[in-house]
Amino acid sequence: MPPLITTAIEDTLGALARARQRSLTIGLVPTMGALHAGHISLIRAARAETGFVVVSIFVNPTQFGPSEDFHRYPRPFDQDVQVCAAEGVDLIFHPDSGTLYPVGYQTYVEVHGLEEVLCGASRPGHFRGVVTVVCKLFNIIQPAVAYFGQKDAQQARIIQQMVRDLNLPLAIQVQPIVREADGLALSSRNQYLDANQRRQATVLYRSLEEVRELVNTGQRDAAILVQTMKNRIATAAAARLDYAAVVDFETLKPLERLHGQALVALAVYFGSTRLIDNILLKVDD
Amino acid sequence: MPPLITTAIEDTLGALARARQRSLTIGLVPTMGALHAGHISLIRAARAETGFVVVSIFVNPTQFGPSEDFHRYPRPFDQDVQVCAAEGVDLIFHPDSGTLYPVGYQTYVEVHGLEEVLCGASRPGHFRGVVTVVCKLFNIIQPAVAYFGQKDAQQARIIQQMVRDLNLPLAIQVQPIVREADGLALSSRNQYLDANQRRQATVLYRSLEEVRELVNTGQRDAAILVQTMKNRIATAAAARLDYAAVVDFETLKPLERLHGQALVALAVYFGSTRLIDNILLKVDD
Repeated sequence: MPPLITTAIEDTLGALARARQRSLTIGLVPTMGALHAGHISLIRAARAETGFVVVSIFVNPTQFGPSEDFHRYPRPFDQDVQVCAAEGVDLIFHPDSGTLYPVGYQTYVEVHGLEEVLCGASRPGHFRGVVTVVCKLFNIIQPAVAYFGQKDAQQARIIQQMVRDLNLPLAIQVQPIVREADGLALSSRNQYLDANQRRQATVLYRSLEEVRELVNTGQRDAAILVQTMKNRIATAAAARLDYAAVVDFETLKPLERLHGQALVALAVYFGSTRLIDNILLKVDD
Repeated sequence: MPPLITTAIEDTLGALARARQRSLTIGLVPTMGALHAGHISLIRAARAETGFVVVSIFVNPTQFGPSEDFHRYPRPFDQDVQVCAAEGVDLIFHPDSGTLYPVGYQTYVEVHGLEEVLCGASRPGHFRGVVTVVCKLFNIIQPAVAYFGQKDAQQARIIQQMVRDLNLPLAIQVQPIVREADGLALSSRNQYLDANQRRQATVLYRSLEEVRELVNTGQRDAAILVQTMKNRIATAAAARLDYAAVVDFETLKPLERLHGQALVALAVYFGSTRLIDNILLKVDD
């Protein structure tokens, strides 16, 4: 059966009420559409663990800065519906902006401390927009489990913090990064890259793997690891570094020496396209 | 049966799950304790309309400013339990600060535009704290209906806006102000007043009633109404005006001429005790 598609909140609530009457657990995969294998891995996890899988498709204006790519962000809706149908999605929630942000809208959720660093430093207001729309989607869909990608590590961390702090009654599942054969992390923004940029874009993955190797061989000095990434990124002529960071995964604060759960994260521009990637390293000693 | 009292979130969720298994609708009356006839009117509304009445009692630190009365705020818990027992409350949720704000807590909900005016101008951060804790209580208790007093008109308006904006799945009921025989609005803070202040404190009610009379006889000029209140407050030697305002109830923005739903609101200090009161006036012409 093809997925039901709803745009209005009331229709969505009706479909969810019917699923609950059938005692189905609800799983939510919040997306901005342009679904790729990364999203599909989230949908499959939801399909395996829950009885009624909802994919939301909404390019959320409040998480884009004024000079960012909100208008050119890809919106291949028909193709996304086909992907969802093939993956056995039950419901696609596809609201428009006026549905989620009606006239007079004025409420925002903020996770202080985690929002202002890493991607938040380059994209002021971005995580406020993400957290707010995700909170709204959680309240509308009321899933038992919601699925996010490790690719957006800071986003996943912030959403986990919001869920914990606001006592939201659901579980968050974070799924591993899905990569192209050459290591490039899947992203809806990869399609912005020209052939030369695409070739050089593997430099993010290669930088992170170089850090992993160094840590495996005992390196614990974060400054050396950061410098290693900067040097590697500098070898790609089309790349312009936004940030390279080694932070504590709980606090997202810079580490001096690696210990516990460390997030090694990169953001790199190719032209006006901004790519991110990361690895999580667990260091016991 | 006396009300169940829970302090831990897990115990609370357990009690609520049992109520839901019995198909009982849940009503929530969020309070800071020191229950008076105003709170009781909320509890009775909840008792009449819902099957399982929860009263939360929590003096919320995040809504008090550093120089405000958080520490001396009354906490007559045993007496509150008796009130709840007499009113047939099912569950008292009485968490401590560490339960609602564990170490590392960092998420806040903000309703921009409505928070900074009226009481928010005198109490920066107050409504951020109110809205955040109420959002948390809604997520923990998941009531079908939550009850608030018209006495805190701005609070009620802001919470309604939050519920609408964040798509929270519950209804908000606002109950009329309960007054002493001489017109003073009930408040847990009235007990701070000495005999002389208490006598003069009716000046808030008298000011509002004077405005009502003027509006009934055709006065629509908000500046004249505000000046009338200021003059009346000035007749009470122990009173010091914080604000007197005539605002649109939807936007909380000052009106020049009365039309639609107008909120006439006052905040007045007696010594360090700050009292508030208000009336809602519906003006058709």
